[in-house]
Amino acid sequence: MEKEHSQIILNKILVAAQKRFGHYGLSKTTMNDIADDIGMSKASLYYYFKDKEHIYSAVVEKEQNYFVQEMRKIIQSPNKAEWMLVEYVRLRLELLKELLSLGKFSQGSYQEVRPLIQSLLTEFRKKETAMVSAILKLGVAKKEFNVTNINKHSAFFLDTLRAIRQMILSDGGTMDISKERYLAISQQSKMFTEIFIKGVSL
Amino acid sequence: MEKEHSQIILNKILVAAQKRFGHYGLSKTTMNDIADDIGMSKASLYYYFKDKEHIYSAVVEKEQNYFVQEMRKIIQSPNKAEWMLVEYVRLRLELLKELLSLGKFSQGSYQEVRPLIQSLLTEFRKKETAMVSAILKLGVAKKEFNVTNINKHSAFFLDTLRAIRQMILSDGGTMDISKERYLAISQQSKMFTEIFIKGVSL
Repeated sequence: MEKEHSQIILNKILVAAQKRFGHYGLSKTTMNDIADDIGMSKASLYYYFKDKEHIYSAVVEKEQNYFVQEMRKIIQSPNKAEWMLVEYVRLRLELLKELLSLGKFSQGSYQEVRPLIQSLLTEFRKKETAMVSAILKLGVAKKEFNVTNINKHSAFFLDTLRAIRQMILSDGGTMDISKERYLAISQQSKMFTEIFIKGVSL
Repeated sequence: MEKEHSQIILNKILVAAQKRFGHYGLSKTTMNDIADDIGMSKASLYYYFKDKEHIYSAVVEKEQNYFVQEMRKIIQSPNKAEWMLVEYVRLRLELLKELLSLGKFSQGSYQEVRPLIQSLLTEFRKKETAMVSAILKLGVAKKEFNVTNINKHSAFFLDTLRAIRQMILSDGGTMDISKERYLAISQQSKMFTEIFIKGVSL
């Protein structure tokens, strides 16, 4: 009961913080702002989180966990592996949108938040690799794909999608996200996925 | 006769300058160094080039022109379009190696040379787009490829290769080129080309 109550408050904090970060970015958000938003005392907030940076990390982790959960459902479904890859890319683009809006990814704030979430990103990357490998294996088992080296292909698939994101986000030297850029990432990622699927299909 | 003589000297300057830039980078090379290397007076060198930056641009342009010439031969050959795309990527990787060794692409020198060659890079990009479009069209005509939107596919192909180069060159925040990174670019580019060809093949 006590634990459940804690969980509810924790969730309240993360939802409020996510909104704040999304509107004002990390640097312009204070612990006071977040506490005020949910009618909580600053002292109580500090009981849950040491500082705003830890809240920020927790918000990123929550988004990543949601993504991983959704992907698990997709991988456990009886659908074609081809569909699973397309769904992976769709959910991954949604996650990107969340993380970008969270960070208000102007160059400054990106440099600022990157070290905070570096270990989360590294861990997440391992999970993504495992998920894409699982999908490729399923595709081979279902006789949809012809992939002899699963690890090589999943690394290639993920690296290329990452390259597309990075190229478009850093175009012109600034790490800036606009609707146009997000759309460009989305289009190029989908086109790559389509060609990748054709390329590995039997 | 006079013009031919000029051409020979010009070429001598560019060959010597290329070696200098390749070993010491732009900032550590002087007009004196280049003049000395070919036993020319500084005054004579200034007759041909206003400053070392103009020599640098001319060297880049020479490399690009060589690439374009080679590609023309390839596109005019009677071979399969698939082979032409593979050759494009092979030559493009060689050009990258030349340009990288030329720039001694540590982050500093890249920032330094980028403005000098920006217009050359933009012009070159147009030529590349035209060449890849020509290959895709040939592939359609030869009934090798199924590509309905030539412009979209050639932009996608070139953008993804560019994304792969940029991601690996800027990995870890530094714009650094090592043999390992060049190898990684080479492998990922070739794998992408293979999958792209399968993806568009009839």
